[in-house]
Amino acid sequence: MHALVIHAPHDLRIEETPTPEIGPQQLLVRVRSGGICGSDLHYFLHGGFGTVRIREPMILGHEVSGVVQEAGSGVDDILPGTRIAISPSRPCGSCQYCQQGLQNHCLDMRYYGSAMRTPHVQGAFRQQIVIDRSQAHEVSSSLSDGEAAMAEPLSVGLHAARRAGALLGRRVLVTGCGPIGALIVAAARRAGAATIVGTDVGELALSSALQMGADEVINVAENPDGLSRFTANKGSFDVLFEASGNERALRGALDAVRPRGVIVQVGLGGEMTLPVNMFVAKEFDFRGAFRFHEEFAVAVELLNKGLIDVKPLISATFPYTEATNAFELAADRSRAMKVLVSFE
Amino acid sequence: MHALVIHAPHDLRIEETPTPEIGPQQLLVRVRSGGICGSDLHYFLHGGFGTVRIREPMILGHEVSGVVQEAGSGVDDILPGTRIAISPSRPCGSCQYCQQGLQNHCLDMRYYGSAMRTPHVQGAFRQQIVIDRSQAHEVSSSLSDGEAAMAEPLSVGLHAARRAGALLGRRVLVTGCGPIGALIVAAARRAGAATIVGTDVGELALSSALQMGADEVINVAENPDGLSRFTANKGSFDVLFEASGNERALRGALDAVRPRGVIVQVGLGGEMTLPVNMFVAKEFDFRGAFRFHEEFAVAVELLNKGLIDVKPLISATFPYTEATNAFELAADRSRAMKVLVSFE
Amino acid sequence: MHALVIHAPHDLRIEETPTPEIGPQQLLVRVRSGGICGSDLHYFLHGGFGTVRIREPMILGHEVSGVVQEAGSGVDDILPGTRIAISPSRPCGSCQYCQQGLQNHCLDMRYYGSAMRTPHVQGAFRQQIVIDRSQAHEVSSSLSDGEAAMAEPLSVGLHAARRAGALLGRRVLVTGCGPIGALIVAAARRAGAATIVGTDVGELALSSALQMGADEVINVAENPDGLSRFTANKGSFDVLFEASGNERALRGALDAVRPRGVIVQVGLGGEMTLPVNMFVAKEFDFRGAFRFHEEFAVAVELLNKGLIDVKPLISATFPYTEATNAFELAADRSRAMKVLVSFE
Amino acid sequence: MHALVIHAPHDLRIEETPTPEIGPQQLLVRVRSGGICGSDLHYFLHGGFGTVRIREPMILGHEVSGVVQEAGSGVDDILPGTRIAISPSRPCGSCQYCQQGLQNHCLDMRYYGSAMRTPHVQGAFRQQIVIDRSQAHEVSSSLSDGEAAMAEPLSVGLHAARRAGALLGRRVLVTGCGPIGALIVAAARRAGAATIVGTDVGELALSSALQMGADEVINVAENPDGLSRFTANKGSFDVLFEASGNERALRGALDAVRPRGVIVQVGLGGEMTLPVNMFVAKEFDFRGAFRFHEEFAVAVELLNKGLIDVKPLISATFPYTEATNAFELAADRSRAMKVLVSFE
Repeated sequence: MHALVIHAPHDLRIEETPTPEIGPQQLLVRVRSGGICGSDLHYFLHGGFGTVRIREPMILGHEVSGVVQEAGSGVDDILPGTRIAISPSRPCGSCQYCQQGLQNHCLDMRYYGSAMRTPHVQGAFRQQIVIDRSQAHEVSSSLSDGEAAMAEPLSVGLHAARRAGALLGRRVLVTGCGPIGALIVAAARRAGAATIVGTDVGELALSSALQMGADEVINVAENPDGLSRFTANKGSFDVLFEASGNERALRGALDAVRPRGVIVQVGLGGEMTLPVNMFVAKEFDFRGAFRFHEEFAVAVELLNKGLIDVKPLISATFPYTEATNAFELAADRSRAMKVLVSFE
Repeated sequence: MHALVIHAPHDLRIEETPTPEIGPQQLLVRVRSGGICGSDLHYFLHGGFGTVRIREPMILGHEVSGVVQEAGSGVDDILPGTRIAISPSRPCGSCQYCQQGLQNHCLDMRYYGSAMRTPHVQGAFRQQIVIDRSQAHEVSSSLSDGEAAMAEPLSVGLHAARRAGALLGRRVLVTGCGPIGALIVAAARRAGAATIVGTDVGELALSSALQMGADEVINVAENPDGLSRFTANKGSFDVLFEASGNERALRGALDAVRPRGVIVQVGLGGEMTLPVNMFVAKEFDFRGAFRFHEEFAVAVELLNKGLIDVKPLISATFPYTEATNAFELAADRSRAMKVLVSFE
Repeated sequence: MHALVIHAPHDLRIEETPTPEIGPQQLLVRVRSGGICGSDLHYFLHGGFGTVRIREPMILGHEVSGVVQEAGSGVDDILPGTRIAISPSRPCGSCQYCQQGLQNHCLDMRYYGSAMRTPHVQGAFRQQIVIDRSQAHEVSSSLSDGEAAMAEPLSVGLHAARRAGALLGRRVLVTGCGPIGALIVAAARRAGAATIVGTDVGELALSSALQMGADEVINVAENPDGLSRFTANKGSFDVLFEASGNERALRGALDAVRPRGVIVQVGLGGEMTLPVNMFVAKEFDFRGAFRFHEEFAVAVELLNKGLIDVKPLISATFPYTEATNAFELAADRSRAMKVLVSFE
Repeated sequence: MHALVIHAPHDLRIEETPTPEIGPQQLLVRVRSGGICGSDLHYFLHGGFGTVRIREPMILGHEVSGVVQEAGSGVDDILPGTRIAISPSRPCGSCQYCQQGLQNHCLDMRYYGSAMRTPHVQGAFRQQIVIDRSQAHEVSSSLSDGEAAMAEPLSVGLHAARRAGALLGRRVLVTGCGPIGALIVAAARRAGAATIVGTDVGELALSSALQMGADEVINVAENPDGLSRFTANKGSFDVLFEASGNERALRGALDAVRPRGVIVQVGLGGEMTLPVNMFVAKEFDFRGAFRFHEEFAVAVELLNKGLIDVKPLISATFPYTEATNAFELAADRSRAMKVLVSFE
């Protein structure tokens, strides 16, 4: 069985790996499709991000779908042959945060393909994987394997949307329309936003945001003052989703957010210098959004019912034997939104 | 100029009425379409409801659309010829509730076509009406006059949906799928509900609920036990919208609502005997929803953008000269959801 | 070792019971004081309530304090001799509600002294008991054993207060000032309520409410119209805690609750006939409050710091050998608020 | 009649000013006591802050109490001789934010003694002032004039506390224990916080925080690592009130705040460089708190009832003829918390 193992920046290898043993309440899954995420790219391009670095070989990947090959003992509600999306969120269930329903803050989280802890948690870009029954979510026959793999990033978008509270009828701004920003556009539209404006500096991201439901997009590289018409009366957006991780994007949007507006920060960008006096005087509500937990089931249900369509975001699919090409395309924001790897 | 004036039960007359004077910040509007609401029907059939009774002749109607005929002094942002939906919500703006943003609880509300206060507030089923500029909401050319008139009941549905908090990914039950219940189905779907089940005792209501977005409907007259498969593990619905005003409908749904579930009561039904111990032990959150205020603008925006489609609910349109026939059809739930009156 | 075992109404026996085995992460506790709760009284007087009936002999009691006698293996953070209050809340930790932080809705709760399931969960009115380490909360030397035993009913009051949301500056009405109502008065005062009015039909309850912090009390038996001066402008209370379980108490208070007011129902009272139209038109938010979970630690901390004083509610203390007398006094609301049993 | 007029930094003059005309629904008030606020100090020391500069002579002051001297026409519910605290918050009542209950974000606010707009809004450090009836809040005879003047900064503290949501049982950290920070300690204690820790770099501030109810204080100048014992398990405080406006104070506290913790930023401090990735990963909820509106009435009620005691914060009182001395003492944080000016 093959797996995609990162050893060092740009050193991604296809390696033979033993099929893991299946236990009770588990499933052996034949992986079919995997999406390349920003964190996978960071490992591939730079060997990590911030203090998180590859310290040993690690299988990448956490956005995957597949087919159940075998069900372990005690599993009687899912059959071999069932097509599934796999949730990579594996909280411990017993720490104080799990017991408060905040599984994404678990003190002992084992998220696939993460070098946050050592030994690293091996990922899911592999031909076979053993998972817990609770990680498997059946997908509709109307979905392709690639769409099913996108349940994971959609979960991130849904979680961000939920962090904003009710969006029905709200005016929403999304800064940064890469894959996550574009999925937030879709989630906000699905959640009933009345107006959605997206900004970015790239044309592919902006056109993708329109396809995912934005009413209007602004290229803030070409039109740096594009948000100024939303600044009257202290600002007109009820909610800002900041998905670029870029300080300028956040600062540039603040005048367009109304007093008591909610700003959901999704993009990771390290240190930012912010005009805190404006946060005080306009009483912004600036909230972080990180990963997801129960939103995975929601993502699959919305995809299964066709209530959100992620097809416009799929830029290309490569066989896993051409994984390096896939990662290189994924790294080019002018040509790719989501790049998929097929493990068949 | 003609108006539809109720004098007594079943005594609805077409009467010549003077065109009112237009003042500053006001508009003279040529009314085009009006929807018959449950309260209009109560005046027509019974002369009122509860302690609210017709004590003098009253023009009915509060769900109307029209065309701006003339703009008063100080109005420079809307032109004659503009097609509009008219909000019937006219709070005072200065009482304690208005100053808290709770305009639907205004101490001096003047809602169109209401006998709650005497002299009654005259309604909008008339060929011409003078309104405040702030009541006018421009509608898209893609909407018919009748769809525009439905902004008002849709506002009620949106307000009810908002009372439930964020619905993205939630499992929703709607009991009572008359016009308001069906619009709540649409609002909940628009707000991102993952699952929507509707119940009613009439086939037209149930098929309408499906058209408005329900995943599944149950005829609880034919299948009184139809909700029993949702009762495992203390109940599976996160939110119940009770839109029938019927005690049995509410009681019959409680086992299917999960602990901490939200129950939004929209239907008016007078006294109900309720198992309060279950409300305590399951810690339900039972919330009233009454009218709307800022949701009117939201309703028009969602209709204008095609994000909610109310056409499936329009059962028939009558010229105002046949208003009595219109009211009689509207009273027959087996044949009509929303009946419109044309004032052209 | 002795325990208080209920066999049938008014048949409460002192029985010799074996000391249970202590296991890992557990404590053997010498029980010192126990408070008689309403549910204990129901078992004693009537053999149960509603469908919950004694079907086998059951040790009563769930409001207890004691001293650690022995610590099981793996317990290294509490020493023998430590005085503790014992939380009777024992959720499973793994069901869907526990994993959402809603432990009071656990699908497999084993609450002390409850006949809700058969075999019944034996209670804590006994000289020795083995508990999980996590149930033990150290109490300050400034607290008597009896005050420590009151951490449990105080937890109920704190949970009810939390169900109302933030109370700082709010106007609060409490209907029913028995032990739980009086503790809600204390919790609401502690939580910053600006105005607290209590109602009851008994003088002892009313004077206790004043001692626990109410600004004013009204005997609604003598003065049925006593709340009428709070009904102007649609009502003046932001929050109503209904702790009587009495339909008339709830109905009589509704006119005094403002639109969008929160009504927390704590009292159990079976079926109630309610004016649901008023709940709709005033958009009340009617919320059940049931037991508690994390509030137990809060109760102990507030008691330890003297931030809430429960001494005024302790009416009498009996040795367990006179338990029947204790129960009979506890049943007389004109003479007793909280009656304690000493197990020393 | 005399007023305290600032002309330039350190140029504070006592000037003869005409008594204003009283109108309908207004009161003529003899001012008795005024507290010197941080913004008054900025005008006195630096001529303003940020872009807000004195561009014309301005009467300072917005924390004042007095006695009603004369009631205008239409005022029948307050008598001459009544002692009052005066709310300096004067929103327009009709803009979009006032109509949403967000009066502190009014588009046309006229806050006393503010150079934010030109002509400046003249302040209340004067012997007589005409106010709207709605600004007057009667104070109890148990309060001194100075305590009554402190209703205003207490309102700021209460508003900050409310921005945090319910505090009952919460663990609270306050960074910066100057007058506002110390009043937040009092507000949080009143609102039911279970644990309150304060930090500052000055001993007077820290001892004041203890007097206002903190459980523990830490001098982070002497003990920069003093919060490290609160960082286990991702942090232990539920709520952080940042009242210093100091970037280091905020950054130094983040490790001690739990995931999903609420951070209320009250202190103004201009640009801050923040570790935004931590805000994302721990999903902080960072909320600005600015001024107040309805909290003024709450402040007076809590003071009147003795539920909050501000006396420990009053460092000194000067006759207005010695105002410059008063301002100089107020500027010395090692010697003064709140300095009052008497206008009698």
